[in-house]
Amino acid sequence: DHMTSESRLMTYGKGDVFAYRTFMPPLTGLQQIPESTFEGKSNTVFGVNASIEIGGKAFLPSFAEGDNSLVVATDSMKNFIQRHLADYEGSTLEGFLDYTARRFLEKYTHVDTIKMTGVEVPFESAVGIKNGESSSSDLVFKRSRNEQARSTVSLERINEKMEVTGHSSEITDLQLVKVKGNSFVGFIRDEYTTLPEDGNRPLFIYLNIGWTYENQQDSLGTNPLNYVAAEQVKDIASTVFDEIESPSIQYLIYLIGCRVLERFPQLKEVTFQSQNRTWDVVVEDIPGSEGKVYTEPRLPYGFQRFSVTKDDLNTSAKKAVTSDTYK
Amino acid sequence: DHMTSESRLMTYGKGDVFAYRTFMPPLTGLQQIPESTFEGKSNTVFGVNASIEIGGKAFLPSFAEGDNSLVVATDSMKNFIQRHLADYEGSTLEGFLDYTARRFLEKYTHVDTIKMTGVEVPFESAVGIKNGESSSSDLVFKRSRNEQARSTVSLERINEKMEVTGHSSEITDLQLVKVKGNSFVGFIRDEYTTLPEDGNRPLFIYLNIGWTYENQQDSLGTNPLNYVAAEQVKDIASTVFDEIESPSIQYLIYLIGCRVLERFPQLKEVTFQSQNRTWDVVVEDIPGSEGKVYTEPRLPYGFQRFSVTKDDLNTSAKKAVTSDTYK
Amino acid sequence: DHMTSESRLMTYGKGDVFAYRTFMPPLTGLQQIPESTFEGKSNTVFGVNASIEIGGKAFLPSFAEGDNSLVVATDSMKNFIQRHLADYEGSTLEGFLDYTARRFLEKYTHVDTIKMTGVEVPFESAVGIKNGESSSSDLVFKRSRNEQARSTVSLERINEKMEVTGHSSEITDLQLVKVKGNSFVGFIRDEYTTLPEDGNRPLFIYLNIGWTYENQQDSLGTNPLNYVAAEQVKDIASTVFDEIESPSIQYLIYLIGCRVLERFPQLKEVTFQSQNRTWDVVVEDIPGSEGKVYTEPRLPYGFQRFSVTKDDLNTSAKKAVTSDTYK
Amino acid sequence: DHMTSESRLMTYGKGDVFAYRTFMPPLTGLQQIPESTFEGKSNTVFGVNASIEIGGKAFLPSFAEGDNSLVVATDSMKNFIQRHLADYEGSTLEGFLDYTARRFLEKYTHVDTIKMTGVEVPFESAVGIKNGESSSSDLVFKRSRNEQARSTVSLERINEKMEVTGHSSEITDLQLVKVKGNSFVGFIRDEYTTLPEDGNRPLFIYLNIGWTYENQQDSLGTNPLNYVAAEQVKDIASTVFDEIESPSIQYLIYLIGCRVLERFPQLKEVTFQSQNRTWDVVVEDIPGSEGKVYTEPRLPYGFQRFSVTKDDLNTSAKKAVTSDTYK
Repeated sequence: DHMTSESRLMTYGKGDVFAYRTFMPPLTGLQQIPESTFEGKSNTVFGVNASIEIGGKAFLPSFAEGDNSLVVATDSMKNFIQRHLADYEGSTLEGFLDYTARRFLEKYTHVDTIKMTGVEVPFESAVGIKNGESSSSDLVFKRSRNEQARSTVSLERINEKMEVTGHSSEITDLQLVKVKGNSFVGFIRDEYTTLPEDGNRPLFIYLNIGWTYENQQDSLGTNPLNYVAAEQVKDIASTVFDEIESPSIQYLIYLIGCRVLERFPQLKEVTFQSQNRTWDVVVEDIPGSEGKVYTEPRLPYGFQRFSVTKDDLNTSAKKAVTSDTYK
Repeated sequence: DHMTSESRLMTYGKGDVFAYRTFMPPLTGLQQIPESTFEGKSNTVFGVNASIEIGGKAFLPSFAEGDNSLVVATDSMKNFIQRHLADYEGSTLEGFLDYTARRFLEKYTHVDTIKMTGVEVPFESAVGIKNGESSSSDLVFKRSRNEQARSTVSLERINEKMEVTGHSSEITDLQLVKVKGNSFVGFIRDEYTTLPEDGNRPLFIYLNIGWTYENQQDSLGTNPLNYVAAEQVKDIASTVFDEIESPSIQYLIYLIGCRVLERFPQLKEVTFQSQNRTWDVVVEDIPGSEGKVYTEPRLPYGFQRFSVTKDDLNTSAKKAVTSDTYK
Repeated sequence: DHMTSESRLMTYGKGDVFAYRTFMPPLTGLQQIPESTFEGKSNTVFGVNASIEIGGKAFLPSFAEGDNSLVVATDSMKNFIQRHLADYEGSTLEGFLDYTARRFLEKYTHVDTIKMTGVEVPFESAVGIKNGESSSSDLVFKRSRNEQARSTVSLERINEKMEVTGHSSEITDLQLVKVKGNSFVGFIRDEYTTLPEDGNRPLFIYLNIGWTYENQQDSLGTNPLNYVAAEQVKDIASTVFDEIESPSIQYLIYLIGCRVLERFPQLKEVTFQSQNRTWDVVVEDIPGSEGKVYTEPRLPYGFQRFSVTKDDLNTSAKKAVTSDTYK
Repeated sequence: DHMTSESRLMTYGKGDVFAYRTFMPPLTGLQQIPESTFEGKSNTVFGVNASIEIGGKAFLPSFAEGDNSLVVATDSMKNFIQRHLADYEGSTLEGFLDYTARRFLEKYTHVDTIKMTGVEVPFESAVGIKNGESSSSDLVFKRSRNEQARSTVSLERINEKMEVTGHSSEITDLQLVKVKGNSFVGFIRDEYTTLPEDGNRPLFIYLNIGWTYENQQDSLGTNPLNYVAAEQVKDIASTVFDEIESPSIQYLIYLIGCRVLERFPQLKEVTFQSQNRTWDVVVEDIPGSEGKVYTEPRLPYGFQRFSVTKDDLNTSAKKAVTSDTYK
């Protein structure tokens, strides 16, 4: 989880570097998929909460001796990031992080490793008027606190060259509920079991879905046909949820992962962190309605951590489920 | 701000009573306005975080003597609220609160005052498939953490009758940015002034907008033509923001308030709590672009609290601004 | 809850103005009480999160016409507050707020009303060494996120004079648990009741306790013998909780309020906002131990809002309880 | 960072399992050190927020086929944890986690890996009365939201035996300020540098300090002389901070790490996550005082991640600093 250019953990950096750029080049030309109508982004407002973490043997004296002579002040890192957002000529979060990380390694040659992380600050279109009609405004946007993209890239200077040692793209904090058509039965019952079986429950999940590319260059968006937008992954997730009768979150995320890999063969792996936040029922029957009344669950929550790779696409069982729908 | 049935503050209640109802009757038949295409809600998932606060002389012995004989346990209040969400036959937050508050006063005749508050737990449509096409799902919804409706109603038993002593509807936590076309100049400059004038800034505002009806019954949604949806007020706010070159937040909210009252003559007053969260510029010029790079502002934030009434509609100055656009 | 110099709500101001002053004059010379050993504060670090809110007829054109000529920029207010913390010669939160509010009204004569609020940023002593012994450090402090003092003062310019229109001191966010010796029985049982009676429960409460002085000048700390420190009120609260077998939170806060007024006759009223956050039991019996295992309660929480005045001190019932202990 | 019993990430579990036990056996008999007077804990209230995460090949069908037959419901895990807190006969967080994890692996033999994490819910003594004197209450405690202990243990079933694959103890969220006597000078100055040098600044740091034992059994507290309490590490941190004139956070944490390892030779490594939250100065000079006025820094914050091992103890430079003080 942390970076070491050697055996000892020794890095430092700057967190919560917020940067907003207006009128950045738009993202267009994405590959279209059946599960999503998402076509791109205007990038009229591009917002990111970035962090930078660097390492290198040269920094040992700053720790062991209090010698600051090779220290890049973290305040300078903040300036570096913000100015490079102005210089960046692309249209994606991944591209901006990769660009800035590479320039940083070029500028400071005593730095061996760098990890840059960016969390999108999402802005949705707001209503304005055009030609006297209600429409999306070109200038007013709504800041969203819902799901957001997140990306990370790690580089290391090896034999004078910069090597990618890690990268990922993610959609985080997605909260989805399906109001019926989910079950959870057949699990182990013993002296620690108090949960009843349930053949038709609502299912409320929190999802973080991450993906890595076979080739990290495809993640930058320079060739938009190979770029996977977080919005597309989000739409696949809700579509698969909508389609199936899920017997568990486990199975649901397995199918979502397979579908993502099926749509985007340029990806290598899809990773999930999911949580179960399903409500508790308080009124079972409402006369004349199929509705019920529920309440917030007690605090402990179940979670899963799981990854799906292309090997999973060859399993026959789920193939049926994943390929039928759109044929 | 607090309720007293007498001179002494003496109330108690239950907070954070979450209740979700599925397949509640939809909200339809709203008055249409030029600034919004909002037509109603499916109410497939209706979520509310409710609170209840009651008062009455009868409760003094529970405080002064530890005598619980007239105490309605707050746990029972929670049950009362959740069960009445099942019984409620309408389609609005305001209607549910009013219905439940009245039933509570009927049931517990030693209670003199009641205040019920509800904060919407908003769900947005998520993508699913219909007939092989990507479309809004009927069963899967996304929980939103963005702006939300909020409503309150206060009742008091006076001479055996229940009187409405207060009510309000609100849209809260709306966060809007307009990326250019805003100024702030001409303010007082003295020895405490370090802020420069700015003739063209982005403007980032947080908004709570509340409204009260001339007749509280109109707030319940029984006659949907007289009901004002939080979504409509939100759309008016962004539309007015989009239209004008604002010299200050003060003037902007004044115009929003006037527009709301103009569209909805059934309202009596519109109240604002606004905050200024405008970014600080860090890169002024990006060659070949009108864009800039900004960063999060330092923590102190400016705010306004202001109400607009129908008297304001007669001021000529702003009439021009508010009525032109759609004519 | 809000300030109006006239019928319309029309104020503006600055929130989250953080200011820290080092080596401020210490607070000493407090009246000692049996329930507390608190004697004063070094004020080596004094931290406050302040807000300011001003009103006046002169501000109407800034809203209705976008005329900023009489607007004190909220950025200037921030500067005003921070510089007056340097000038303040006293030792208390209340004194600082009162001092700054009065200077502000003097400086800006078109301002009619001002409300200043301060929330303490508390620092606790941390361990250091003195003469080779572990002891409290004079220079290192721990920032606490626990309970904190809060104070507010409202002034209005009436006939050229500044009148105090409101003031309060508070200890907020105090979280106390008593592990046994509390009951809750004898409340109303009906079709909405599912809570069992409990004759010996732990009781976990959140407390905000506020107080006002008969004479606001006593709140400033100029005469420390008349000043009531938030730490003293906190100690009274836990002492009374420790002493009694409480049949309800209602009765507990009543007794705390009486005790505070008994110790500090310079006060006029004590006000409570309390919450019940009592755990749920999950293991009733642990062989060989009087202990039990509990878990966090479900989300809805009960609350009380209550005030106690000197009239309550004459009730005989509780007199016995409150005066015995220290005699 | 995550557990895999094989190449694929595949685990699940339960988070936010809150459990409180009253009257647990006290912790006594700790090794005393010069930097701390901490001697132990009453454990009248022991609170923990626990999580459990399990893995194993047996769980693949639950993901790939929706087959729940080998699934231990996470609700059952919650029950397991809470009941084992009642059964646990020791006195430490680490001991409880280790005990429960081992019982879990014994009970469910198809589970290959388990990771248990516990975050202390800290309770501080509150004031009560004893024999008419103000004193620490035996029954009333204050819940603290300040720094807290955190511990984790990972076990894996290898050849029918349970092996420890990871463990750590930590003190987290410690926030310390030293009001003078810190500098930051001599760092790289270039076109990205805007931060001035500062020869005497306050220094505000957030600290997470973790430690691992040479022998994981020593972490359980069964032999309290070998146990290192989070309170002792905290006291070492503030004492070293108090002692030195720090030229940077880097050097400060290096010295803290060395001191911890010097005092506790049973430890193997000390790990830091530190943040710089130093205030910005707003008033430099207050006549007649060495004090200043500061304000909250802008949001981006610097951070360090660093580990210290016994190899560092042999460096001569810092030896002088660390061993002088108490001789």
